Amino acid sequence: MNDSSGNVVVLSGGIGGAKLVLGLNHILSDGRLVVIANTGDDFEHLGLAISPDLDTLMYTLAGRVNPETGWGLSDESWSFMDALEKLGAETWFRLGDGDLATHIERTRRLAKGESLTEITRAFCRRFAVKTPILPMSDAAVRTRVLTADGALDFQHYFVRDQARPKVIGLDYVGADKAAPSAEVLAALRKTDLSAIIIAPSNPYLSIDPILAMPAINAALRETETPIVAVSPIVRGMAIKGPTAKIMAELGHTASATNIARHYGDLIDGFILDSSDGNMVEQVESQGLKSMSCDTIMGSLEDKIRVANSSLEFARTLT
Amino acid sequence: MNDSSGNVVVLSGGIGGAKLVLGLNHILSDGRLVVIANTGDDFEHLGLAISPDLDTLMYTLAGRVNPETGWGLSDESWSFMDALEKLGAETWFRLGDGDLATHIERTRRLAKGESLTEITRAFCRRFAVKTPILPMSDAAVRTRVLTADGALDFQHYFVRDQARPKVIGLDYVGADKAAPSAEVLAALRKTDLSAIIIAPSNPYLSIDPILAMPAINAALRETETPIVAVSPIVRGMAIKGPTAKIMAELGHTASATNIARHYGDLIDGFILDSSDGNMVEQVESQGLKSMSCDTIMGSLEDKIRVANSSLEFARTLT
Repeated sequence: MNDSSGNVVVLSGGIGGAKLVLGLNHILSDGRLVVIANTGDDFEHLGLAISPDLDTLMYTLAGRVNPETGWGLSDESWSFMDALEKLGAETWFRLGDGDLATHIERTRRLAKGESLTEITRAFCRRFAVKTPILPMSDAAVRTRVLTADGALDFQHYFVRDQARPKVIGLDYVGADKAAPSAEVLAALRKTDLSAIIIAPSNPYLSIDPILAMPAINAALRETETPIVAVSPIVRGMAIKGPTAKIMAELGHTASATNIARHYGDLIDGFILDSSDGNMVEQVESQGLKSMSCDTIMGSLEDKIRVANSSLEFARTLT
Repeated sequence: MNDSSGNVVVLSGGIGGAKLVLGLNHILSDGRLVVIANTGDDFEHLGLAISPDLDTLMYTLAGRVNPETGWGLSDESWSFMDALEKLGAETWFRLGDGDLATHIERTRRLAKGESLTEITRAFCRRFAVKTPILPMSDAAVRTRVLTADGALDFQHYFVRDQARPKVIGLDYVGADKAAPSAEVLAALRKTDLSAIIIAPSNPYLSIDPILAMPAINAALRETETPIVAVSPIVRGMAIKGPTAKIMAELGHTASATNIARHYGDLIDGFILDSSDGNMVEQVESQGLKSMSCDTIMGSLEDKIRVANSSLEFARTLT
């Protein structure tokens, strides 16, 4: 365990990022970690307010996530979906019976006027998750995927169409006007912050919606805290999801180097996988500190190890 | 089977009425039965549009109702309620995982602008229920129970408070302004109608909300079709539910005679239980044709038998 770390903020999307967040949480479970979560994936479906990344992070930190899928609850039942199918309703977005309680109660509370930040805090308390999981904003920011077939709402692109359409651009609708919550800005402006980590989430789909908010972007550019990103690309491939495919469609070779280039001077350090160790020099030639380690996070030990490496690396950048 | 009956309309609430409706449906399954259902029990709960009587009738006619409770689906799972309880949300109204699909899809379609009549028709088609189940209105009519502790929404009185508060009056909010659907009026005005049956539902909670709509009341008063009510009170007790308790609280002895008096000259005939056979004369002295038969409907055979008796009795009143 890494007791010399101070407070840490991690920016994360869902499944991929949640692995590193879980590792960080094991090290910093005494209140030193704050998670800022992407809400660009949020959408209204069947009249319910769905926040996939918030829920994946909460279920993961609660030890309740489905280990097979990385999302949803473990030991889930599916009677609702079966009944919904019999009614002829849309079933492409899978909602488990237990998971449904989260969406229905969130929708009810939002309608009552509670903020997504308050609701997530209350839910985390119920799930015994002590680390704050902060939605990047209480205002709606919605990722739209511009494809060769037209613009698609994020979940239509990602889940319904299984990321098959060719991506030609991305739009984070509302990001320019959405204010981050006071909690998010306070977390980024903490004076005793020792590191800001960008989890190995899909940069285009999970991190850029956060960075697209001017106040968050400015806070990251102003901070003196080292910002470290962990590459989601290993040997030209994404561990999971369409990151490599999207990079290629946008005209970039899928490589750790190009992920580093994507974040550019926003970050101070970049971690790539040992198998891409030969790229450390390329990345450093962009003026960015870089290091390599084994970033594949299969086991909990892996997650803690990569989290420790990230924190140690950040410490060298102060 | 009673092949000489023409078209029949039945007015019904949920569990109690659904027994007779099931019997009638067995006899008149060839398109000769129309059910007009109470929607005064409908309410919005957890952001969902719940129509308890419509669903009980649909599940009953589909052979899918939970035989233990008389409401909800058989072979139901309860993961949603368990998860909701863990989130600290309200759990006094039990929503099964499969049943939830009905509420979520109804809520979604209502928000899209579909009428409750259209939605119920679509659901019935999916449940292979051919007999039309018509909500008494597409407009909101909400039963309010005036109690010694103050006015309560129906489900708060009935389910949350388990009908414990003392009833001092009832209000069918919106009934005076709500128009019945065109389908309801057409069903009541059919020229080849041979009987209108009032199911043995709670008169105050399940039938009066229907009768409180001026256009339905007028159609019933204008029709030449015999109207027959089946008593929900047997030997001074209700088969199920708080009918007897409410009658006493409202200052009426709980008796079949007083149920007949309650419906008064709206109806042409009254059926009471054999064990109350001594009251036939009392009821007839009110100027109402009356007959007795065994009205307890435990088995499907009982339901068909009482349905047949009702139809035969109505035929004598033409």
